[in-house]
Amino acid sequence: MSRRIRRTPYTDRVEQVGVRGFSVVNHMLLPKAFQTSTEEDYWHLREHVQLWDVSCQRQVQIEGPDAAALVQWMTPRNITEAQIGDCLYVPITDPQAGLINDPVLLKLAEDKFWLSIADSDVLLYALGLALGRGLDVSINEPDVSPLAVQGPKAETLLAGLFGEHVRDIGFFKFGWITFQGTQQLIARSGYSRQGGFEIYLNGSELGAHLWDAIWQAGEPLNIAPGCPNLIERIEGGLLSYGNEMTRENNPLEVGLGAFCALDGSVDYVGREALQAIAKRGVQRKIRGVAFGGGACPTCSKPWPVMVGEKIVGRVTSAIWSPRMEQNVGQALIDRDHWTPGQNVIVHSQDGATRPGVVSALPFD
Amino acid sequence: MSRRIRRTPYTDRVEQVGVRGFSVVNHMLLPKAFQTSTEEDYWHLREHVQLWDVSCQRQVQIEGPDAAALVQWMTPRNITEAQIGDCLYVPITDPQAGLINDPVLLKLAEDKFWLSIADSDVLLYALGLALGRGLDVSINEPDVSPLAVQGPKAETLLAGLFGEHVRDIGFFKFGWITFQGTQQLIARSGYSRQGGFEIYLNGSELGAHLWDAIWQAGEPLNIAPGCPNLIERIEGGLLSYGNEMTRENNPLEVGLGAFCALDGSVDYVGREALQAIAKRGVQRKIRGVAFGGGACPTCSKPWPVMVGEKIVGRVTSAIWSPRMEQNVGQALIDRDHWTPGQNVIVHSQDGATRPGVVSALPFD
Repeated sequence: MSRRIRRTPYTDRVEQVGVRGFSVVNHMLLPKAFQTSTEEDYWHLREHVQLWDVSCQRQVQIEGPDAAALVQWMTPRNITEAQIGDCLYVPITDPQAGLINDPVLLKLAEDKFWLSIADSDVLLYALGLALGRGLDVSINEPDVSPLAVQGPKAETLLAGLFGEHVRDIGFFKFGWITFQGTQQLIARSGYSRQGGFEIYLNGSELGAHLWDAIWQAGEPLNIAPGCPNLIERIEGGLLSYGNEMTRENNPLEVGLGAFCALDGSVDYVGREALQAIAKRGVQRKIRGVAFGGGACPTCSKPWPVMVGEKIVGRVTSAIWSPRMEQNVGQALIDRDHWTPGQNVIVHSQDGATRPGVVSALPFD
Repeated sequence: MSRRIRRTPYTDRVEQVGVRGFSVVNHMLLPKAFQTSTEEDYWHLREHVQLWDVSCQRQVQIEGPDAAALVQWMTPRNITEAQIGDCLYVPITDPQAGLINDPVLLKLAEDKFWLSIADSDVLLYALGLALGRGLDVSINEPDVSPLAVQGPKAETLLAGLFGEHVRDIGFFKFGWITFQGTQQLIARSGYSRQGGFEIYLNGSELGAHLWDAIWQAGEPLNIAPGCPNLIERIEGGLLSYGNEMTRENNPLEVGLGAFCALDGSVDYVGREALQAIAKRGVQRKIRGVAFGGGACPTCSKPWPVMVGEKIVGRVTSAIWSPRMEQNVGQALIDRDHWTPGQNVIVHSQDGATRPGVVSALPFD
């Protein structure tokens, strides 16, 4: 790996606990697997607590008199009522209402925001918009590297380590903890459905210390290193930018309608396009597909979903679920066939044809 | 690998010829190694011809009445004299003159350009600028996937396959070839100093056919699969965005002054900052460093370059050169010590201290 693919403040530790491979998100390493299998990690995540290096969720910091205006311009979600301490899931759309990213917005002050981004250079987009319109903002990537503590025992762990007030932080809210004399942001959030927190560590030099402190406090709770778990993510209906959605997709078809103001209350890039799509109705929607034929391969290109001779959709992520004892996938399905219970055939990239059923998301 | 890290039109072929690993650039696979070592590939590249899947050099297409104005606004290079058929190396700078990317600009028409980009989402930046200023342009990523044919036998190969007119294409110019009834752009360019061409294949469905046609024509010339070669790149003084330069660097210090108009003839983002830097003089410059101590490890974080007790620079890329029989690196070196011949000590990340000498770039 060259310097271009950036290490994180936790990479040394992640290597020490036996990482077996990395992916790359936002030009930065994301651990992909450790010593145990994805299935073992899945069961562990549902029962215990895991420590995830998600530094690749980079923060785009937008600060200044025009910060709120710029953020609102970037997202269909009405953020005018957002409070300091809120985390908001905010789709970002292009003029055709195609998705550019789906970050979490953290409101730090009336004039200061972080966009905790998925895999595209939102900073460059925000910078372009600001320069083009002459907005009074400063935009940069602070030295902030999220470390996620996920699983049902996460609260016990962090309350013990940082204080009981951690328990009072609501879902998708953030508060503050003290660590080695520094104030650090902690949010009740994370890329799993098993509960947990993300610590937005400000200061790379503290990375190994924070990892060690949590690790040590977590040992009685059976802590393990982890990473976003594909089985849990698919079952839980969590989307992945680049997989379930790209600029080819609008927020309405991937189930993000609740985060889009269509009433004209706020203006944003892509509003007209999104209103037009809403008016004529979306033509496909994100769905689950449960399907058989034995454990499926990795989905590295969209797989046709067929009804008879007709392609009615595409699977974009899929994996074997040991709990459901079948494969689970996420798919965009055309409107005539998107009703849960629809029988389909999935053509996976190994050439197999697999009988399946359309389902709601999350799966359970 | 999930769909998020995109396969290319050539990935199937690259796998068939035994790729051993990939890197990720622009959310897309870039082959990193085949069956032979980097050293063997280096010698082969200097003597024969190689086929490189560089689809990750994505094209940002900017088209419309304001296209030329937008492109000029993005780069310090004066592009007003550019002709259709020109390829221009164009740094892209932010308001502080920090580097956002260093693409090759292809002028396809007076109102149509491609930016063939390094690893950052220039499309989002261009889109932001255009939306912010209300420019009349359309911006998108066409289905264009460059395939590089590099090495001293590249011209013989391609002239034989596509016609003698290929020989008439000048360095950093492009022309056209006919392939299976389609017109395809071919430029005399590429990420090596050994000569060669890049075919900007428009139409993914032709990928395997183009690969096969070149492969077959190349067999008598000892063609091999390849990828950008780190030894050859460092020796040749070719920069890598994300390694030698980031937004922390300005074009002047990394040797791109020749591509920056400082005379006020054109306006662009970062002009004032760049003029100020030029006026006070750059404080560090890109240099080669040749150093010993046996084959060095991979440079995944900047390595201190010392003179006595003082850090005078940082190595950003390095590798053992079998031809020079020492390590070669690229480094930013402070002004008091950047004169070729300066003795230094390189502290590589394996903990070794290695005696070295500052050199000009390219190395020979």
